[in-house]
Amino acid sequence: MAGGNGEKASVVESKEWYLAAYAPVGVPTSDHLKLRSLPLSLAVDSIPDGHVVVETLFVSVDPYQRTRMTGIDEGLYLSQFNLEEVITAFAIGRVIRSKDSNYKEGDIILNPFSPIADYYMVSELHLRKIDPASGVPLPDYLSSLGIPGFAAWVGIEVLGEPKAGSNVFVSAAAGAVGMYAGQLAKLKGCRVVGSTGSDEKVKLVKDHFGYDDAFNYKKETDLDAALRKYFPDGIDIYFDNVGGEMLEAVLNHVNKHARIPICGMISQYKKKWTDRHGVRNLLNIVGKEIRMEGFLLASYLDRFGDFAKEMESYIKEGKISSKYTIYHGIESYLDSLGSVFTSTNIGKVVIEVKS
Amino acid sequence: MAGGNGEKASVVESKEWYLAAYAPVGVPTSDHLKLRSLPLSLAVDSIPDGHVVVETLFVSVDPYQRTRMTGIDEGLYLSQFNLEEVITAFAIGRVIRSKDSNYKEGDIILNPFSPIADYYMVSELHLRKIDPASGVPLPDYLSSLGIPGFAAWVGIEVLGEPKAGSNVFVSAAAGAVGMYAGQLAKLKGCRVVGSTGSDEKVKLVKDHFGYDDAFNYKKETDLDAALRKYFPDGIDIYFDNVGGEMLEAVLNHVNKHARIPICGMISQYKKKWTDRHGVRNLLNIVGKEIRMEGFLLASYLDRFGDFAKEMESYIKEGKISSKYTIYHGIESYLDSLGSVFTSTNIGKVVIEVKS
Repeated sequence: MAGGNGEKASVVESKEWYLAAYAPVGVPTSDHLKLRSLPLSLAVDSIPDGHVVVETLFVSVDPYQRTRMTGIDEGLYLSQFNLEEVITAFAIGRVIRSKDSNYKEGDIILNPFSPIADYYMVSELHLRKIDPASGVPLPDYLSSLGIPGFAAWVGIEVLGEPKAGSNVFVSAAAGAVGMYAGQLAKLKGCRVVGSTGSDEKVKLVKDHFGYDDAFNYKKETDLDAALRKYFPDGIDIYFDNVGGEMLEAVLNHVNKHARIPICGMISQYKKKWTDRHGVRNLLNIVGKEIRMEGFLLASYLDRFGDFAKEMESYIKEGKISSKYTIYHGIESYLDSLGSVFTSTNIGKVVIEVKS
Repeated sequence: MAGGNGEKASVVESKEWYLAAYAPVGVPTSDHLKLRSLPLSLAVDSIPDGHVVVETLFVSVDPYQRTRMTGIDEGLYLSQFNLEEVITAFAIGRVIRSKDSNYKEGDIILNPFSPIADYYMVSELHLRKIDPASGVPLPDYLSSLGIPGFAAWVGIEVLGEPKAGSNVFVSAAAGAVGMYAGQLAKLKGCRVVGSTGSDEKVKLVKDHFGYDDAFNYKKETDLDAALRKYFPDGIDIYFDNVGGEMLEAVLNHVNKHARIPICGMISQYKKKWTDRHGVRNLLNIVGKEIRMEGFLLASYLDRFGDFAKEMESYIKEGKISSKYTIYHGIESYLDSLGSVFTSTNIGKVVIEVKS
């Protein structure tokens, strides 16, 4: 095995995850996702011009990855992974061999389509170099400055139209996106309440992310009563991460002209659509003139620069906190992905492959 | 009884509708809406300064009126009617007595809050004079230039963002709003298909309103198959008048970035919300980045001038057709309102009180 930077082993064994079978419903298991080990030559002669070899440092584990494993290509999200091929994710890596004059050994890069593997060879197409002098911790590039932070920013700042004093509700508030959604809304002067799935996470949301209040939805037998209690003046913005029963309850408590940016519906992915919870009170959309809008980040890439500038300044001013659930080793991908769908994780899930 | 314009009877008997009991669910019946007869003095001495007496010519019958009879004031639509008081509607009338120098006998006026009565006395607050030389038939002011036309315009042109070639679906296509929604979309170069509740109305929608195609939803046992057939390229704009099962079916057939302006959910008003059809596939909103937005006309009054200018020019150029279901006499209000909720009417429902 190659160690850190610069050791000139000629071949490394790289473990990589590939898709053995599609999983149309449910959480993917070891029947669907399998690990295999492949040798990768590090001999400079064996690397084509314009290519680099990367060792993976951190892998981002995100719900959208699961949507590439259903085998049902609806032309919506990113395309489906091909069976037997390595699967990919946002990841941070270190260049350990380079046949590209733009990269040198030791460069730290961000790759949105990184193979989920210990090592891989790649042409520079998708790579973005990370400036080690930026002062931003590396995992932040997968979290506050990555998909979750950008999703929170698009939902709150682009679609949510927050004003000082707006009443904002965030579901899955201790999750990767929720933790930033609430903090961004607070920075805009809103009153923010979150829901989450354990008392520990309720405490985290209030103490660490600065939400005005939070509740454990698993303990609330009556969501309607809970929302009435936490939002005596109604809800102006609902940042929806979960869909289903919570969305239905919220529709009875939103104010006139409420905005409901929908980032995800984590409660809904696991079932066939005909078995999902039906939302019965959509009539509220008319009477309250609600705007409900789904979004995928690919449609907002032209705003990434605005987002990154704002978020970096918050990070440097210490105004944004992050929490991570860290898995160790590329072998942990299957478990880490499962955790995203079972409410067992806190904050952003990443795999630390090598530090 | 006073006849037409100018006859100087001193007292008229005026029949008026009042609310005897609220109707939280279902279609209001004679238990809720009652007619009474009251004398109204036409003696000029008895009319206060700044007031006029109006005889009603045409009354507009619209679904929103029913929302003022539930007794449940959600602060959403217009306020609830008071029990025992006369109920109101958009109506056209003729001034038969005037103690206001801005009005003379014979003036034709539009009153958005006209008592549903043969005759009434009113100060000029809400009245708008109609120019008899405009060449626009009087009922058009309640239809193409009234609530239904304006609702169609806001939904299609403001929220729908139609482009030439967009695939547009309109439900309740032979109804007051639907007939204009489809025609406005056609005028923008869209391909338009409508759904409606009888073969007769399917024919009307195609032959009279110029829809590219239409179907009878009551004959389609499989809405999913129907939409696949009529929209091989998917739906870009769904102008929703009905909600429920149709909305659910549509969500499986809309394209990426589809717009769903929601004007009403006529299928949903009659039941308590917990008994309504639950829409199970809202996850489409995320993956397809759908924007679903309810609207009430009160929020768009600043655009009424733009609308009226455009619609008047269409009417004068013969580019907009209207169909009416005409009831006769103020006594017919209860039946006419019921027809709006039972799919028995065609086009715009009006009561011709006097011609």
